Amino acid sequence: MATVAHGLLAGLDDIAHVGRDRLRGGYSRHGFSSTDLELRDWFSEQAGAAGLAVETDRNGNLWAWWGAPGDDALVLGSHLDSVPGGGAYDGPLGIVSALDAVATLAREGFVPARPVAILVFVEEEGSRFGVACLGSRLMTGSIDSIDALRLTDQNDITLAEAVRSVGLDPHRMGRDEAALARIGTFIELHVEQGRGLIDLDRPLGVASTILAHGRWRLTMTGQGNHAGATDMTDRRDPVVTAAQAILAINDAAWNAPGSRATVGRLQVVPGGTNVIASRVHAWLDARASTDRQTRDLVSTISARLDTIALEAGTAVSMTEESWTSLVHFDASLAAHTAGLLGDVPLLASGAGHDAGVLAGHRPSAMVFVRNPTGVSHSPEEFAELSDCIAGVDALITLVRELA
Amino acid sequence: MATVAHGLLAGLDDIAHVGRDRLRGGYSRHGFSSTDLELRDWFSEQAGAAGLAVETDRNGNLWAWWGAPGDDALVLGSHLDSVPGGGAYDGPLGIVSALDAVATLAREGFVPARPVAILVFVEEEGSRFGVACLGSRLMTGSIDSIDALRLTDQNDITLAEAVRSVGLDPHRMGRDEAALARIGTFIELHVEQGRGLIDLDRPLGVASTILAHGRWRLTMTGQGNHAGATDMTDRRDPVVTAAQAILAINDAAWNAPGSRATVGRLQVVPGGTNVIASRVHAWLDARASTDRQTRDLVSTISARLDTIALEAGTAVSMTEESWTSLVHFDASLAAHTAGLLGDVPLLASGAGHDAGVLAGHRPSAMVFVRNPTGVSHSPEEFAELSDCIAGVDALITLVRELA
Repeated sequence: MATVAHGLLAGLDDIAHVGRDRLRGGYSRHGFSSTDLELRDWFSEQAGAAGLAVETDRNGNLWAWWGAPGDDALVLGSHLDSVPGGGAYDGPLGIVSALDAVATLAREGFVPARPVAILVFVEEEGSRFGVACLGSRLMTGSIDSIDALRLTDQNDITLAEAVRSVGLDPHRMGRDEAALARIGTFIELHVEQGRGLIDLDRPLGVASTILAHGRWRLTMTGQGNHAGATDMTDRRDPVVTAAQAILAINDAAWNAPGSRATVGRLQVVPGGTNVIASRVHAWLDARASTDRQTRDLVSTISARLDTIALEAGTAVSMTEESWTSLVHFDASLAAHTAGLLGDVPLLASGAGHDAGVLAGHRPSAMVFVRNPTGVSHSPEEFAELSDCIAGVDALITLVRELA
Repeated sequence: MATVAHGLLAGLDDIAHVGRDRLRGGYSRHGFSSTDLELRDWFSEQAGAAGLAVETDRNGNLWAWWGAPGDDALVLGSHLDSVPGGGAYDGPLGIVSALDAVATLAREGFVPARPVAILVFVEEEGSRFGVACLGSRLMTGSIDSIDALRLTDQNDITLAEAVRSVGLDPHRMGRDEAALARIGTFIELHVEQGRGLIDLDRPLGVASTILAHGRWRLTMTGQGNHAGATDMTDRRDPVVTAAQAILAINDAAWNAPGSRATVGRLQVVPGGTNVIASRVHAWLDARASTDRQTRDLVSTISARLDTIALEAGTAVSMTEESWTSLVHFDASLAAHTAGLLGDVPLLASGAGHDAGVLAGHRPSAMVFVRNPTGVSHSPEEFAELSDCIAGVDALITLVRELA
């Protein structure tokens, strides 16, 4: 136990200084950035020190192999990137736990009967290029690579340019049959992003489903002008339209039980204090229990925005940036996993994950570690060391039983 | 006329490439930036070529002297900086017109009876450090230099650091009696930022008053969390509070005739699509016909925001960043100026200007040039060449009569 705790803490501690965000607090670690490269180098070193052979796949995901690479492997994975101003656990906990579990089993002399790998998916949060789970979506072909390569970050750098800058060939990106064939079973350990395990008073859980969810980019257009010289009656102010839109979005989710709708990112152009804006970009994150409910929620919002803009003399457009249908994790694998871990509870997840993207293609499961704050995507996100150790023990058990 | 038109166009054309904003359109030219230095170098060269001697005052404002510097001068001036994504005329029109007027008079052999200077005020828009008319406020002491030097830009660079980087001594900044003594009369030519001259069908006007106005920084604080994993009922989302605040601000101005209130700048922290924000900064620009009306408007807004935050379980704070009382321009100078220019109309200004800050200290006047779009602080801002020429002719007339 002592070595496990030591390895786990050392892993999170090693990267505690990487990508700190002084403005927002917490971490800003985005795909294909210099911070991301630093995290990838750290992972490669750690894996190498544990005797694992590291390779990068065509889409920029990192694999560390215990023994010879091969098809039908047991793959443990998660991600190292974060949302802007994110916490220390979302992503990295899954990676350091997997490294710790494999190192512990190797020291104990365990010999797996099938290949075992640790997989680091790139740009899981989608904080740089707008599409979450980008690495797994590219691997599975659930996003077309031509569409993906045109995505831009806030500095108008395309994904194609960004991947080239880290030495990847954009022409080789896209659905990767060879990589998929290597995944026999995928297991992602992740800090819980909600209060399910707090309410149940349990350290661990296993995922049953992930809410249907998507992202839409809204653009409100008005007439830029001088804030002091323009009568209230002469304005077509897109900031006011955006404010009405945000309240309509909030109301729509409140009125559809089980639904969630959020605007967490706004860009006002030009953004001067003494300037009536000419346009506002806002991003909508919408989720619900079924695909139909999510689509209905977004339709309701869209109709409301049209009415708001019409009445205000502004214009509004809405573009889907990503969509993920309701995920049902493989029920027998989930039940088997929960049983192996001592009948831990099954939980629905509100958050998307690479395991959810893979679930449509390969048997996948998730292990959640209790988060005593219930808060995630925030520096306040946390997990107790004893719960983290329970998570590593769970991975050790699953490798023993499944590999 | 041909030479005037040529000089005027050449001036705006010379700087047409400087500080272009590809994201917003138009120009982003902020005080003490590399763009600002480029504009200042351009001005110094132009003034030098016209035989004027250029000096920088203790606060970073540029003076170009026609003949020997001295007290009680006739000073023509404006600014070269812009709002983010601003137009080509707001500021630079006054500078190129002054250069053109002085060059024309010099060529014609006119000999002024008192010193004449062209004055370029720094950071008039306040787009970098948040306080408009920073150069004239520092010169007149209407902002305390210790308070000013602590102001920060969006990269957390203080004004003290910024001025040091361009070779100014922050310890020497502040009220500048010597500079004020040199201003006998100040005349600022400026593109109109409204529809007054369009409605009157006149190319030129003279300022009578400037609305009382100020800027307030609002901070809404909530609980950052995961957009997918957090029930609507468990949220304290400061973006929703900000939206309610924007609508309350808009309503308050609509309900107080003659008032204007605008939110044109917003910052959502951390600003991720799948993240419920932890805080939002918003900037309020509020103006009304009298100081009392403006203060009442802001009090109404403040009370509404407290109620909104209380009901939402969020927190809101409101900090005054700048305040300018109602400006009455020197009535006899305004009447005299309007008479010299052929009984042009007197106009109230909704926009603040350096001439308004100086008006409390030295006789100051403003000449407005018609803006056929009525739009300002936007790339659509415009002035017809014939109206611009009328503006240069007006400055020529005023120098002849007043110097």
